[in-house]
Amino acid sequence: MSRSVEEFNRYRKRMNEKILATDNLEIKRFFNLDNAVYKSGALDDNTKELLGLVASMVLRCNDCIAYHVQQCVSVGVNDAEFDEAFSIALIVGGSIVIPHLRYAVEFKEQMRNQGQ
Amino acid sequence: MSRSVEEFNRYRKRMNEKILATDNLEIKRFFNLDNAVYKSGALDDNTKELLGLVASMVLRCNDCIAYHVQQCVSVGVNDAEFDEAFSIALIVGGSIVIPHLRYAVEFKEQMRNQGQ
Amino acid sequence: MSRSVEEFNRYRKRMNEKILATDNLEIKRFFNLDNAVYKSGALDDNTKELLGLVASMVLRCNDCIAYHVQQCVSVGVNDAEFDEAFSIALIVGGSIVIPHLRYAVEFKEQMRNQGQ
Amino acid sequence: MSRSVEEFNRYRKRMNEKILATDNLEIKRFFNLDNAVYKSGALDDNTKELLGLVASMVLRCNDCIAYHVQQCVSVGVNDAEFDEAFSIALIVGGSIVIPHLRYAVEFKEQMRNQGQ
Amino acid sequence: MSRSVEEFNRYRKRMNEKILATDNLEIKRFFNLDNAVYKSGALDDNTKELLGLVASMVLRCNDCIAYHVQQCVSVGVNDAEFDEAFSIALIVGGSIVIPHLRYAVEFKEQMRNQGQ
Amino acid sequence: MSRSVEEFNRYRKRMNEKILATDNLEIKRFFNLDNAVYKSGALDDNTKELLGLVASMVLRCNDCIAYHVQQCVSVGVNDAEFDEAFSIALIVGGSIVIPHLRYAVEFKEQMRNQGQ
Repeated sequence: MSRSVEEFNRYRKRMNEKILATDNLEIKRFFNLDNAVYKSGALDDNTKELLGLVASMVLRCNDCIAYHVQQCVSVGVNDAEFDEAFSIALIVGGSIVIPHLRYAVEFKEQMRNQGQ
Repeated sequence: MSRSVEEFNRYRKRMNEKILATDNLEIKRFFNLDNAVYKSGALDDNTKELLGLVASMVLRCNDCIAYHVQQCVSVGVNDAEFDEAFSIALIVGGSIVIPHLRYAVEFKEQMRNQGQ
Repeated sequence: MSRSVEEFNRYRKRMNEKILATDNLEIKRFFNLDNAVYKSGALDDNTKELLGLVASMVLRCNDCIAYHVQQCVSVGVNDAEFDEAFSIALIVGGSIVIPHLRYAVEFKEQMRNQGQ
Repeated sequence: MSRSVEEFNRYRKRMNEKILATDNLEIKRFFNLDNAVYKSGALDDNTKELLGLVASMVLRCNDCIAYHVQQCVSVGVNDAEFDEAFSIALIVGGSIVIPHLRYAVEFKEQMRNQGQ
Repeated sequence: MSRSVEEFNRYRKRMNEKILATDNLEIKRFFNLDNAVYKSGALDDNTKELLGLVASMVLRCNDCIAYHVQQCVSVGVNDAEFDEAFSIALIVGGSIVIPHLRYAVEFKEQMRNQGQ
Repeated sequence: MSRSVEEFNRYRKRMNEKILATDNLEIKRFFNLDNAVYKSGALDDNTKELLGLVASMVLRCNDCIAYHVQQCVSVGVNDAEFDEAFSIALIVGGSIVIPHLRYAVEFKEQMRNQGQ
């Protein structure tokens, strides 16, 4: 099995804190923007998190997938919605997306098993 | 200015017909899948087309952007929704997405100017 | 050392089964296409598997490399043929392919050590 | 229609000459390597050019596609072989490969129309 | 020949103005960041522009290359420095960078011909 | 925590030796080029290693990052210079670079903790 949800979150939190301890203003501002952009507006949270998830899948970034799968679960994306988003990522990005689909499915399952 | 909507559509249609004139079954099946995956289901058309658009932008494919901008316009995505989808593509994919954002905005404007 | 051949295959098989347990037709159809496309036809198995391997290397997907190295070995690709395919992937994709070349060589060696 | 074969070749030749007029040794050596790697050896020309073509398609580089389509035609790749190579590139790389498949098909047709 | 420096700059300026006419705050902030990040600091302008250029080349973005070639010329990067930066981009990114190297060299030559 | 500096270096050295034990001339020559290109010339070591680092970050290659972070440290890049290079990689490549920024920061910290 890949990393657990908890391991991933701990590592991500610890390293983000180190990064944000920098004096570099552009890095800090980018991190702020990266939070702001998913806040609901003309598009709701659900749609925005799915946009983040599909973008992460076609760009084949497992850590980004881990983050957006959690966000999608927390705003209430259901399994049929996940599957349709997965299918779009798969058709757009091709078979090289499959390893990342495996990761997304494994990560989502972990969260469902914790009752989420 | 870049290609017009009409030029792009003519070229795309003509070449897709040539491609589908092949005997190769896998190519034909893939083209069918590529249509099927955007049909509304658990997720509505609007969301699915936005997923296709953002995936195209972060992968920096202008022809894919041209297609999905048209589809988004035809299912009724409004300008504020476009902007939020654009902002997610931009933050996920970084400044290398900017040339493709210019293309998307130019292409959308062409369609709005035609009353769509 | 990286994952063993057996670990990789077990994980891949288990997760693919979960993915194919979905009701989503497009995902299932894509997985079928992904098998069909490597069947020998105008091009023989050997060539098709090498095409899959080089595509996986330039796209820098270790799981795809692990799969196609095994397939290449099973259809009888020899070491000199592997090396020439590796050299094309390296020249096309540049030094960022090197970590994936290391992975491919390590994975192939594991299989040769098992008498394949 | 996109650029003609002749236009592409003229531009490519002219610019490569400018690049190779540099004193930079690494750039010159890389260009030599880029020729050497497609010479027939354990794998024949045909296979090597197809490897170059599929790598170019999944990496979505039209100029690389234009070059390798010509090379494939010149070493005698037939249409059925082209289609199978195209289908692998399409399944590996997904729908974002389609615009580049259109380009490859258009470019190959130009060459066939010139009797090649 | 590809687009002239003037054509590129006009198109870029016109479209950026349209993009920044949006109410979307994240898009505006990202454009600000994209300017701020190249201002001299611990690293001088010269180095920062070369970082932007090489990043643009390995990511194979011609519009980004067009912009950073101009910036490099304007901060005084000389031809030998350009060539060494080009050689790194080429070795890191491989032969798929060559079409973009052609573009960079053509664009730089245009600027030198204008006395810059 | 991710791999230690020592683990990474051991694995890299061992696998590179296996790769270079090949008779394939193009692979050997490419490895030579990959060393030669970072030698100081018109640009100093410091700048060249930063170019290699930023290219590795935007292409999202952790092994390449691990190598260039070490090289940067060994030629004396200081923390403020690292941060500015990181910020350019982040703005050019977007939020998908963040996991690789975490890796770069973690790897650099390991080296600083060893007194480098």
